[in-house]
Amino acid sequence: MAKQKNRGVSPSRQEDFPAWFQAVVREGEVAELAHVRGAMVIRPWGYAVWELMQAELDRMIKRSGATNAYFPLFIPLSYIESEAEHVEGFAKEMAVVTHHRLEEDPENPGHLRPGGKLTEPLVVRPTSETIIGRSFAKWINSYRDLPLMVNQWANVVRWEMRPRVLLRTTEFLWQEGHTAFATEAEARENAEQMLEVYRSFADVFLAMPVLTGEKPEEERFPGAVQTLSIEAMMQDGKALQAGTSHYLGQSFAEAAEITFLDKEGERGLVHTASWGVSTRLLGALIMSHSDDVGLRLPPTVAPQQVVIVPIPRGDDGPAVLEAAEELAREIGELSFEGVLVRVSADLRDREPPDKRWEWTRKGVPLVLELGPRDLKEGVVALRRRDGGDAKPESLERAKVVDAVPALLAEIQGAYHRAAAERLQSRTRNDISSFDEFRQWFDTDPADAEAGGFVRAPWSEAPESAELLDELKVTVRCLPFDQHLSDGASCVLTGKPAVTEAIFAKAY
Amino acid sequence: MAKQKNRGVSPSRQEDFPAWFQAVVREGEVAELAHVRGAMVIRPWGYAVWELMQAELDRMIKRSGATNAYFPLFIPLSYIESEAEHVEGFAKEMAVVTHHRLEEDPENPGHLRPGGKLTEPLVVRPTSETIIGRSFAKWINSYRDLPLMVNQWANVVRWEMRPRVLLRTTEFLWQEGHTAFATEAEARENAEQMLEVYRSFADVFLAMPVLTGEKPEEERFPGAVQTLSIEAMMQDGKALQAGTSHYLGQSFAEAAEITFLDKEGERGLVHTASWGVSTRLLGALIMSHSDDVGLRLPPTVAPQQVVIVPIPRGDDGPAVLEAAEELAREIGELSFEGVLVRVSADLRDREPPDKRWEWTRKGVPLVLELGPRDLKEGVVALRRRDGGDAKPESLERAKVVDAVPALLAEIQGAYHRAAAERLQSRTRNDISSFDEFRQWFDTDPADAEAGGFVRAPWSEAPESAELLDELKVTVRCLPFDQHLSDGASCVLTGKPAVTEAIFAKAY
Repeated sequence: MAKQKNRGVSPSRQEDFPAWFQAVVREGEVAELAHVRGAMVIRPWGYAVWELMQAELDRMIKRSGATNAYFPLFIPLSYIESEAEHVEGFAKEMAVVTHHRLEEDPENPGHLRPGGKLTEPLVVRPTSETIIGRSFAKWINSYRDLPLMVNQWANVVRWEMRPRVLLRTTEFLWQEGHTAFATEAEARENAEQMLEVYRSFADVFLAMPVLTGEKPEEERFPGAVQTLSIEAMMQDGKALQAGTSHYLGQSFAEAAEITFLDKEGERGLVHTASWGVSTRLLGALIMSHSDDVGLRLPPTVAPQQVVIVPIPRGDDGPAVLEAAEELAREIGELSFEGVLVRVSADLRDREPPDKRWEWTRKGVPLVLELGPRDLKEGVVALRRRDGGDAKPESLERAKVVDAVPALLAEIQGAYHRAAAERLQSRTRNDISSFDEFRQWFDTDPADAEAGGFVRAPWSEAPESAELLDELKVTVRCLPFDQHLSDGASCVLTGKPAVTEAIFAKAY
Repeated sequence: MAKQKNRGVSPSRQEDFPAWFQAVVREGEVAELAHVRGAMVIRPWGYAVWELMQAELDRMIKRSGATNAYFPLFIPLSYIESEAEHVEGFAKEMAVVTHHRLEEDPENPGHLRPGGKLTEPLVVRPTSETIIGRSFAKWINSYRDLPLMVNQWANVVRWEMRPRVLLRTTEFLWQEGHTAFATEAEARENAEQMLEVYRSFADVFLAMPVLTGEKPEEERFPGAVQTLSIEAMMQDGKALQAGTSHYLGQSFAEAAEITFLDKEGERGLVHTASWGVSTRLLGALIMSHSDDVGLRLPPTVAPQQVVIVPIPRGDDGPAVLEAAEELAREIGELSFEGVLVRVSADLRDREPPDKRWEWTRKGVPLVLELGPRDLKEGVVALRRRDGGDAKPESLERAKVVDAVPALLAEIQGAYHRAAAERLQSRTRNDISSFDEFRQWFDTDPADAEAGGFVRAPWSEAPESAELLDELKVTVRCLPFDQHLSDGASCVLTGKPAVTEAIFAKAY
């Protein structure tokens, strides 16, 4: 066992949580920063996890009534200018295309330089409200064309000064839903409905329970009337915003001139909403469930849910390989959560312990080992990934196949339970003074076991900002389920509270 | 019927084929050029077709052993420079990112201008050989890491001077497969295997039979040792290259330094291949199957295979709507090609003839109409999209449900048959002199019924180029199935032929 232990990732969560995260991402072959500063390669294993997430979320989005479409990557500068006029706090760190050709550099033979200067620079989309809005303006004529609900799976670019793999990269993948309605009520309802889609997706599919609520004014998407979010707690007690949904009012409709004739023949502006989640969710998934051995994947998003590692020795080698393949075939006929179990027998030309370690570090929920002695005794050695690097269990071959769906369900449940317990036990509801508040948050940033969320009354007073900044704490959301008692006073300022808020350090 | 006829697209194929294509794309709500010169919006209906194509092709690619991954959109200029050194004929029309910020323009108040100049310009990927190659170099160490087969679904950008919707756009969507092998034989086999995937995908799934063969040297992907392609014939007799596959030899491996230790412990360069198809296939699909009424979609790629248009009149309105929904429910339980039939009842607040026309123009294979009289008589009016705007057929309600899968299969078959007949009847095998050759190709470009392919012996002599250029004809491919007779002479030059070739005008 000592050997197995030594092969876990380094450092541990306890030693240095951010460095542990990077090690899990690297050793689990999920992704890497490469080639261009802040840019990311999503490796096949990590991308397969993303594809499973994408497929499920896509089904949920379509069930909401939205359809997918694709809009241009490049946005004319004039669109951005008109949006910047309408939107305060508009972020301007964007990649700008200024040329459409490479040509020989006469001053530097053998080298190329940009040529063919564009008359109008093009911005690489940081988000598509402005370009999709202008298409909507063309497509929408009367109330009969509403609601219009469109979703896009795409890459977006935001120039990041301090890139971190999966969490903050210059380019990332996401989906962005853009919807238009005749009335404010419908647009607000859509924003709420999609937040609920995200909440249930995170909770059920990613085994990651989240809090839901409204963002305070200063944390809203620039130009939005209301921003809603789901907030997950990572294993170091920090918050990660895992999805947002916005009611945008009529300002984006005004900028893009999206009008419609209502039933009475009057022309008016539509109300719009938008909502999105990104490859950041892969980061959330890892910081929620992984351990000091490496990646741990809930079975729902594991590209391989079961891997069989044969241990072929001597004359029994061929029989062992054949038995491993037969076992994979049988398990592959079972279903988990309505889909055939993803299983394979690893027949590659490598040492069995290396294989076992590879699948463990990549988070496969169940690794089954099968050697000549197991074959003779009619057993299979089973390692559950939720058991850390615990000793394998020996199961009768005849029973192991049928046991797989239940084992996967147990592992899914175990990850969910651990995340839910953390969210509950590390959220303080009992802090009422700023001194206590400061003590809770004033911790060593490397200490993964200190801190968490605080749920407490808040005044929304402007002087909150300074107090929070000092502790590097933010208001994550004003939770939907409010329990503000009469006469409660603000945990930061002592002034009369107007809302309950969730406070946390955040990614 | 006159009314229906008048609502077909204009002009007809016969009047002006290119303008007809644009009208079908527009009226079928497939895509549009918008926002940025040469950029394309793929509308929800068109994108749903693409998603169906993508899902099937993705399954086929995964069955070949490749896995998906994602690589950065931006490529450092230095990578492109090193590739340009290795590759003659390297295309240089690319979008170049030179700045990472927008800032207030002091010379032009209220306007923004690029700021934050990058030290090294970044190129927006036109294709990813160079960046994926460098990741391969990192991931591949020994023969145990081979073969490595990775596919990417992504957007790519090539600056187009004469953009045409779906066929030649500045940005398009595609998949690009990149594979590395220890031996030349394996890499060549992979290129051939993936061409066969494309051929069968086009033939079976898109009902679009294609020719397969090798590109002549001057039409190869720059840097490739061998380029293979599938070539489809459009309804105007022109060729459309619908997919390519390349054996790249070791030159890309050399540029990216992709080496491996073989079983003997010697370090060598890998052999690479790449292969791709793009949203251009949507254009091919339309020019293969659509008619003067509008879009026609093979059932396999129709987002709705059956639409029921209720004709609610007077007191029977509610009963008709209910009957339409019930019919949709029943049809939705049937399968076609192993998938549940995609069916809906169109209950929107619009006139029934407008609805019928919309679905017809969007290519839905079967439109069923149901009014009060039909309800009483126990019948449904059926319109098959492969019947043009023919009179609807009246079918017993009790029989219509069970008939759907067979009807869809018939329509799929009819589209395939028409395309196969065209490919055969408009490919001339009997042309042996340049005079005849010239006559066949020297036609009015707007005449959709003139011309086609020529299959004939070819000398590969350099003077071919001039003769072909004059007629705007190209060598599409050297077909795999060669029937060159001894002593055959070149159709262009009269010199001794070395191969059979397919000649055509092309998109």
